[in-house]
Amino acid sequence: MKELRIRCHQLNTIVGQFRKNADKILHSLEQAERDGIDLLVLPELTVCGYPPLDLLEHNTFIDECLNVTHEIIQASGSTALLFGSIWKNPSQHGRALFNAAILAEHGKLQAVRFKTLLPTYDIFDELRYFEPASENTPVLWRETLLGVTICEDIWTLDTQNTYVNYAIDPVHTLVDQGAQLLINLSASPYTRNKAEIRRELLSKQARKHQVPIAYCNLCGANTEVIFDGDSMFVNPSGELIGQAPLFDEGWVDAHYDQQTLTPLKQTINGIPRTEERTFRALMSGIRDYFTKSGIPPKVVLGLSGGIDSALVAVLAAEAIGPDHVVGLLMPSPYSSQGSIDDSLTLANNLGIRTHTLAIHDIFGSFQQTLEPVFAGSPSDVTEENLQSRIRGTLLMAYSNKFGHLLLNTGNKSELAVGYCTLYGDMNGALSVLADLFKTEVYLLSQWLNSHYYMRDVIPTRILEKAPSAELSPGQKDSDSLPEYDVLDAILIKLIEQQHSVHEIVQLEYEAQLVHKVYSLLMKSEFKRKQAPPGLRLSAKAFGMGRRIPLVHGWNETDINH
Amino acid sequence: MKELRIRCHQLNTIVGQFRKNADKILHSLEQAERDGIDLLVLPELTVCGYPPLDLLEHNTFIDECLNVTHEIIQASGSTALLFGSIWKNPSQHGRALFNAAILAEHGKLQAVRFKTLLPTYDIFDELRYFEPASENTPVLWRETLLGVTICEDIWTLDTQNTYVNYAIDPVHTLVDQGAQLLINLSASPYTRNKAEIRRELLSKQARKHQVPIAYCNLCGANTEVIFDGDSMFVNPSGELIGQAPLFDEGWVDAHYDQQTLTPLKQTINGIPRTEERTFRALMSGIRDYFTKSGIPPKVVLGLSGGIDSALVAVLAAEAIGPDHVVGLLMPSPYSSQGSIDDSLTLANNLGIRTHTLAIHDIFGSFQQTLEPVFAGSPSDVTEENLQSRIRGTLLMAYSNKFGHLLLNTGNKSELAVGYCTLYGDMNGALSVLADLFKTEVYLLSQWLNSHYYMRDVIPTRILEKAPSAELSPGQKDSDSLPEYDVLDAILIKLIEQQHSVHEIVQLEYEAQLVHKVYSLLMKSEFKRKQAPPGLRLSAKAFGMGRRIPLVHGWNETDINH
Repeated sequence: MKELRIRCHQLNTIVGQFRKNADKILHSLEQAERDGIDLLVLPELTVCGYPPLDLLEHNTFIDECLNVTHEIIQASGSTALLFGSIWKNPSQHGRALFNAAILAEHGKLQAVRFKTLLPTYDIFDELRYFEPASENTPVLWRETLLGVTICEDIWTLDTQNTYVNYAIDPVHTLVDQGAQLLINLSASPYTRNKAEIRRELLSKQARKHQVPIAYCNLCGANTEVIFDGDSMFVNPSGELIGQAPLFDEGWVDAHYDQQTLTPLKQTINGIPRTEERTFRALMSGIRDYFTKSGIPPKVVLGLSGGIDSALVAVLAAEAIGPDHVVGLLMPSPYSSQGSIDDSLTLANNLGIRTHTLAIHDIFGSFQQTLEPVFAGSPSDVTEENLQSRIRGTLLMAYSNKFGHLLLNTGNKSELAVGYCTLYGDMNGALSVLADLFKTEVYLLSQWLNSHYYMRDVIPTRILEKAPSAELSPGQKDSDSLPEYDVLDAILIKLIEQQHSVHEIVQLEYEAQLVHKVYSLLMKSEFKRKQAPPGLRLSAKAFGMGRRIPLVHGWNETDINH
Repeated sequence: MKELRIRCHQLNTIVGQFRKNADKILHSLEQAERDGIDLLVLPELTVCGYPPLDLLEHNTFIDECLNVTHEIIQASGSTALLFGSIWKNPSQHGRALFNAAILAEHGKLQAVRFKTLLPTYDIFDELRYFEPASENTPVLWRETLLGVTICEDIWTLDTQNTYVNYAIDPVHTLVDQGAQLLINLSASPYTRNKAEIRRELLSKQARKHQVPIAYCNLCGANTEVIFDGDSMFVNPSGELIGQAPLFDEGWVDAHYDQQTLTPLKQTINGIPRTEERTFRALMSGIRDYFTKSGIPPKVVLGLSGGIDSALVAVLAAEAIGPDHVVGLLMPSPYSSQGSIDDSLTLANNLGIRTHTLAIHDIFGSFQQTLEPVFAGSPSDVTEENLQSRIRGTLLMAYSNKFGHLLLNTGNKSELAVGYCTLYGDMNGALSVLADLFKTEVYLLSQWLNSHYYMRDVIPTRILEKAPSAELSPGQKDSDSLPEYDVLDAILIKLIEQQHSVHEIVQLEYEAQLVHKVYSLLMKSEFKRKQAPPGLRLSAKAFGMGRRIPLVHGWNETDINH
């Protein structure tokens, strides 16, 4: 058996941008040939990007994907290429397509293998599109038996998957048939602690089966979903021996010989701390939204003087440059001077442009116009929402006039309990913090000041003052909501860990409080239904991965325990 | 073999409202016992309602559903009850739940069978929640072999399913094992021509296998999805011998003897024309939104003088009564006197209240506030959207102050091409016409005047004038869009029939026009992402059944044919 040089190259592909994806793949192949690589591994569905969703129901999309796939096969030379694409199911029964890993060399198809475990939970809908593989056999290539799997196929030892306990274990089946090297092509999204979980999983699989693993994962963001790359090689001992960068495009190489991988150079960088990963994930999310949709990267956002909009301003300025970010200050009669000053200081620190548009007159016109109908009824949430909607309308007017996309500045805590106004502060093309709890917003902001900038780019006053929507005199978030550390702790249990109300009360929290949070969470589903897409950072974000009916009669707290 | 009296009772259940659903089931059972029924058949997932979606991921929901299921089993007496619920998968592998049909009699479980074909396309996500049945065997009950299937299981002869061609045919398997009577429990949603397709399918199955069929389908609406009931009995000859009402709760009975069904009374009513069905579907949709969410049925909507808002006003007045409907007239400087007069005439015909709130002043305040930033730039779509958003904000202010839900009045043609304003006329809790093309809006309106009211409740002027958004001087829809009959024909092919641009051009349409419509359709996905839930009337509505990535690089018209 000959020694092999293997490269995992994590590419940032664009869904449906076949020409660009193909160019990227061919460029990677040329580079690998120049570098004397024997086998180049690319991520899952490299050709069409991930997730293609219902574009896969269009024959023109499928045809183009297959055409480009064959073009890539033909372009292969002495470096073998193992890449992801779709493949037609030759049977008349079942789904028409497979999710495939394709091995090409010397211009010819050498082997094709299909994904067996098709995740159909959370944001994943793969059984909607693909037929599962009916068998798993290793690929014999250059005297080596390759155990080729795709993403979920290797997650069989994942104890955190509460959705399904697969009856089939493709890795086991392949090793049973003598697979000497496991290769996994992935499109495995980033979540808060995914890097740790992924390392542990791959290490466990390698140790369990005493085989080395080459793992190649997608990087870059597609609308809500962010992929963190993190491609790597793991030895049969479970030892990580080489690692590609987190989030960015890049590759990692290794020598394969005698069922052992050895690094070509030292490429182990460890896992950055959570805040840094969150920061880099959000950078990808914002940048790729523009890069991949072809929309000029120019944004507008409302600067309220609060922490959320401050953080979004920082992230936007970092992602697309301060010259492309405009902040609107829209004080109302209830805004404090402090909020205005703090916003201006922040904008100045970042070097972004601002405009100040007081909403007093517009607010007055609305009140006057509504007077005959409202007939002196006391102020209530209507007037608070009105201010929020006036601001949302001004932001959209700026967006429409100058072609700047509106960035939404709401956080996950607000969105969870409905502490936000539809068609007001919920407006936006992209919600940057939709999957970040308020307590995490603070942690990230503090980290940016202390570790990234090493100075107070976000003014300390913004970090220190009590959160307020400033929609009525002297209003504080804590008038309506529990303190954020308590609220977020309960929300994480309800949303991400799917604890019941009863279980949470048993833990340590006041029953009435947990009931209130649960009730707010369930009642505000209608708002989230119309929320902008939000960048996904957790294992359960609002959006496509959480599908709760709007109209239903379920209330957990009615049930007698 | 003894003669049997069988009843299919189509109930209107509420997702997660276990107490109410159980009461409904037990009441139906008592009635059946009084009527000397031997076997009472209820719809799919009777106990928890359909579709429960991700509520099925909560253990408390599952536990409560199983508790109520066992309570119902225990309550059964001499009338056997075949009903739908969930069932725990005893295996450690696969999904934890089955979608089950449960036969109970004399307080005991007699048999349980599981759904085999789990639809996972369009609005359906059943493989996300359920493990498919691993085998299909008939149930021997009172000397008769019952072939029990659930919904999709019987749709194996459906030639219109372009998503999947199932490898397994549960009906075939059951008949092979001697099933003498096929019973199907369904939650099969209404679509425009579903009644015809359903009759043809059941008739074909009965003839093919020479067995009679008892078919029980859900009725009522759950958020977007409307179920039309239409339970029925079909003889081995394919003859329909009894039929429950369309859309409403009700039952149909038959005698079963010697593999033949005979009607207990004449209950064949035929299929009403499309407009009547659309009308009744929308009535269900509006009514159940309120009934099932427990929100008081009071609505507000904007009356523009156009056909869409006129039709929604009519439907709302019919569904919840004119006393609970309020129309806001919000003329701008570009509104015609005719629009105001026509709206008032309509409101008067319906007996609904109106308020007139001119938006001139608010529009002026916005322009003044924005002046320093806009600095004399010419009017464009910004100012048009501004008017729409002022109206959307006034409607929401009314909604917030008086607790009336805002009904959205946009139609499918507008929504498809993005001829609508986010946070403006796209506002609303429920979109009544979201799945009705503009040409269908006219047909339904004309039918209401001519066949339902037999007088011009919708003023003729509204039906006859050229559609206009009235957002700039002399504006007509036809300035921006093709005529609606052409537009709708192209849209149906693109959205519902998944024709390619190339195929449509080949048919008869001008290439440039088809390219434009395709491009508008694809470009406005971001608007629909934030649209209110819309009542589903077609086989492909916008919403949960159409999942196109927001950010992607796919453009069919770039591909060379």
